[in-house]
Amino acid sequence: MALKSKLTKIREARWFSNLTTAIIVIYSSALGLKSLMDADSSYMTLMSLLDYFVTVYFLMEIMIKMSVEENFLDFFKDKWNLFDFVIVVITLIPLENSTMAAVARLLRIFRILRLITVRPGLKRIIDMLLGAIPSIIDIVILMFIIFYIYAIIGNFLFADVPSGLWDDFLISMLTLFRILTFEGWTTVMYEGMAVHPWSWVYFVSFIIIAAFVFFNLFIAVIIGEMEKLRDQDDHGHEDEMEKLDIVLAEIGKLREEIKALKSENK
Amino acid sequence: MALKSKLTKIREARWFSNLTTAIIVIYSSALGLKSLMDADSSYMTLMSLLDYFVTVYFLMEIMIKMSVEENFLDFFKDKWNLFDFVIVVITLIPLENSTMAAVARLLRIFRILRLITVRPGLKRIIDMLLGAIPSIIDIVILMFIIFYIYAIIGNFLFADVPSGLWDDFLISMLTLFRILTFEGWTTVMYEGMAVHPWSWVYFVSFIIIAAFVFFNLFIAVIIGEMEKLRDQDDHGHEDEMEKLDIVLAEIGKLREEIKALKSENK
Amino acid sequence: MALKSKLTKIREARWFSNLTTAIIVIYSSALGLKSLMDADSSYMTLMSLLDYFVTVYFLMEIMIKMSVEENFLDFFKDKWNLFDFVIVVITLIPLENSTMAAVARLLRIFRILRLITVRPGLKRIIDMLLGAIPSIIDIVILMFIIFYIYAIIGNFLFADVPSGLWDDFLISMLTLFRILTFEGWTTVMYEGMAVHPWSWVYFVSFIIIAAFVFFNLFIAVIIGEMEKLRDQDDHGHEDEMEKLDIVLAEIGKLREEIKALKSENK
Amino acid sequence: MALKSKLTKIREARWFSNLTTAIIVIYSSALGLKSLMDADSSYMTLMSLLDYFVTVYFLMEIMIKMSVEENFLDFFKDKWNLFDFVIVVITLIPLENSTMAAVARLLRIFRILRLITVRPGLKRIIDMLLGAIPSIIDIVILMFIIFYIYAIIGNFLFADVPSGLWDDFLISMLTLFRILTFEGWTTVMYEGMAVHPWSWVYFVSFIIIAAFVFFNLFIAVIIGEMEKLRDQDDHGHEDEMEKLDIVLAEIGKLREEIKALKSENK
Repeated sequence: MALKSKLTKIREARWFSNLTTAIIVIYSSALGLKSLMDADSSYMTLMSLLDYFVTVYFLMEIMIKMSVEENFLDFFKDKWNLFDFVIVVITLIPLENSTMAAVARLLRIFRILRLITVRPGLKRIIDMLLGAIPSIIDIVILMFIIFYIYAIIGNFLFADVPSGLWDDFLISMLTLFRILTFEGWTTVMYEGMAVHPWSWVYFVSFIIIAAFVFFNLFIAVIIGEMEKLRDQDDHGHEDEMEKLDIVLAEIGKLREEIKALKSENK
Repeated sequence: MALKSKLTKIREARWFSNLTTAIIVIYSSALGLKSLMDADSSYMTLMSLLDYFVTVYFLMEIMIKMSVEENFLDFFKDKWNLFDFVIVVITLIPLENSTMAAVARLLRIFRILRLITVRPGLKRIIDMLLGAIPSIIDIVILMFIIFYIYAIIGNFLFADVPSGLWDDFLISMLTLFRILTFEGWTTVMYEGMAVHPWSWVYFVSFIIIAAFVFFNLFIAVIIGEMEKLRDQDDHGHEDEMEKLDIVLAEIGKLREEIKALKSENK
Repeated sequence: MALKSKLTKIREARWFSNLTTAIIVIYSSALGLKSLMDADSSYMTLMSLLDYFVTVYFLMEIMIKMSVEENFLDFFKDKWNLFDFVIVVITLIPLENSTMAAVARLLRIFRILRLITVRPGLKRIIDMLLGAIPSIIDIVILMFIIFYIYAIIGNFLFADVPSGLWDDFLISMLTLFRILTFEGWTTVMYEGMAVHPWSWVYFVSFIIIAAFVFFNLFIAVIIGEMEKLRDQDDHGHEDEMEKLDIVLAEIGKLREEIKALKSENK
Repeated sequence: MALKSKLTKIREARWFSNLTTAIIVIYSSALGLKSLMDADSSYMTLMSLLDYFVTVYFLMEIMIKMSVEENFLDFFKDKWNLFDFVIVVITLIPLENSTMAAVARLLRIFRILRLITVRPGLKRIIDMLLGAIPSIIDIVILMFIIFYIYAIIGNFLFADVPSGLWDDFLISMLTLFRILTFEGWTTVMYEGMAVHPWSWVYFVSFIIIAAFVFFNLFIAVIIGEMEKLRDQDDHGHEDEMEKLDIVLAEIGKLREEIKALKSENK
């Protein structure tokens, strides 16, 4: 059991997470540089060595973390551990056939995601964003309804324009997304106005409803979530409630003393 | 009356609203897919069957909701019921003449709007947006005044530019809306500067006033409304007020006991 | 004096401000429509009649407002009255020489600004925006410093590019403003990178500093001002303070009664 | 020591900082105008005279500030003094060789940054922005991770497109930054879709994740920091806590009086 307590100490150690961070950063930088230089053979050898080392290190790290748990399966109870595990396992799969090998090499870039589990600050932001999903889901549904209606109307009105931007439902959705980002939306509109002169109503109303109104709802929800996160550190309201409880307790004591006075008086 | 209580139970049942949701989603998906595939005859037959079924289901659903009301007309007191009713009725109108039939088919896409009445979360957001209108109306009027002044000046200054973007009042308004979204506004400006070299003042001032200042006012109002919505769940202030009322009541009791003490003393 | 009290009643009357609003809206609509139709002679006659009527109405309205003041000059103490007065006077100036006459006619569009003084909601927003200036002035100065430094560096680095977008200090400022709105900034950047390959640092850093950081500061300030405006209607904090004052007064009365009890006891 | 107290008085004087502000503004304006006019010899002579004068003034000013400190080195304890010192020193370096001389002249534009140290409002905003860095650093890291993953995938998928926008890792990063600002992103997407028809998923997902979600996080953090800055002036919560302390003290006095009453009673 001496080994287990030693491993626990390692897992909690600051130098251990710093080492992991450093390895991820070095490895990811090397991976990013690859496309900058001509991939000559010496670089390739170095890279495959580094790759081998990182794979072993990650395996070792995950084994340390697993072994110190009471039960081997407890490790997977934390969803971030599961996340780490999936990333490590994915890059272990041996894919020899040529096209798949390229994809397998590409998958290694997701190792940079392990930075999130190493830095608690990043974990907190991701948790916050995941926590905001219930507040956002209704806005996303409304947004989808707006896109749906406009896509079908757009497909109905502009199916024959030469640019082919409204050819079917999916392409119309993509065109609407483009209009949402204001990217060349006037080109799309002027083309539409050549067919139906009044179609500026369609585009202007979509921009006002989708881009101005609903887009701001998104901002508002995220700002709201950030404020919630910040308010957790700021307990102004709770402080006042506690003090009011003290006031009430004090008044209670006063009443008891007066009662005592009364009984003495008799 | 056994039937009525049975129908009321159905109306309130979770499976009933889930079934409605599912039918709307399936129907809308089928409608969206139409343009993806070549509209062959087998699809057409399926679609008209589905259309028939949805029409009947919606009619039945609205009849159930109507029949369980005390009075038949109470149903229309809720504006969301009226909304449902209009959507159902619109798609019932038989339009046989060829051009109108296309429009009638198009109107069916608004059936997806019934999702709003089925999901309470969506209803709340729409209600909030409608509730924000009084706060926004003044900003919209100011925005319109700015657009009006700039449109007439733009029409006065640039009426002769070859692109025809300032040909009349309405087209100038549309051009200003385009500038508000920053879409190719420099092209419009450089064309204007060819006529009046100092006209960059016109464009830059419009962007600063309309896009930077008033646009942010919109964001601010919507964020404000979202906060109001969230504050309804958070009764910090009310809690403190209630506790202060308890404190006051306690002090009142204290005074009475002291009064009792006084009268005993005599 | 009967006349004066009658005029005061008129000035305060709801129908009077509604009438003014209606006249402004009708007049402005007619002015806006001018460019839509071919300006034939019958329209011109109608327009000059309408113009004559509005001028007389505005003069009359301002005279009513002036005459009911204690002192004739008190009228100008309210800056909004001064604003009205300037708008009315400007359109009275007779300008017969041809080029100036066009400008004089153009000036009439500012009559729509009188809507602001008629509707209190609009006045409040404008007052709020003017009140936000002190908070914004420092951000504007910082923004100007950033523009200044980047304009001179840009003029130094890219003075010779064929597009002439960096020809002198003012044109560089305009180009930077264009980049701030993201309008075709990559075209400007790719042109710059042809001369100095590393100039993407210049453009990316400008966008991050000017557009991302300082631009958001603007949004933050305006949202802050809106919140201040809203908080004026919401006196949560004041309510609690008042209630706490009542609690203190109650405790004071308690002490006096106990004192009375004491003196009786002796 | 009479001299020292005199110099301290000068340093604190309002006219002294106003004079410095004026000199910076005049000098910077002259520098900005340079590129507007043909740089004829009379302007050059005037400019070098002005340059000489400003250099001497800045040196004198910094010497005054240094000399009034207890210890000469205390001056550098304030990071803003160090900032001033660096700006003054940099423009003193004599660079005679032709290419460097141009850069040295260019460096003089940074003298406008001294405006920040002269105006306290500007200093506060910069301090606030620097203070926001810890809150933003995690978002920046997450943003970088997203850019990194998308850059490598983009480089992998679109390395062969004719525009060369995905040629290596750094250029892919720049292309992604461009997409983040929505600048011509559809052009990039349509080019990519010509190679891989489903690559719209890549672009749309990047815009949703990077531009919509994380970008709004930035806004939220900056708005949060602004609110913190504003809340420092608004002590609503502290007021209530103080008042509650007074209430508690009053109740304490009440109890003592009752105790006194008790002991008298015996």
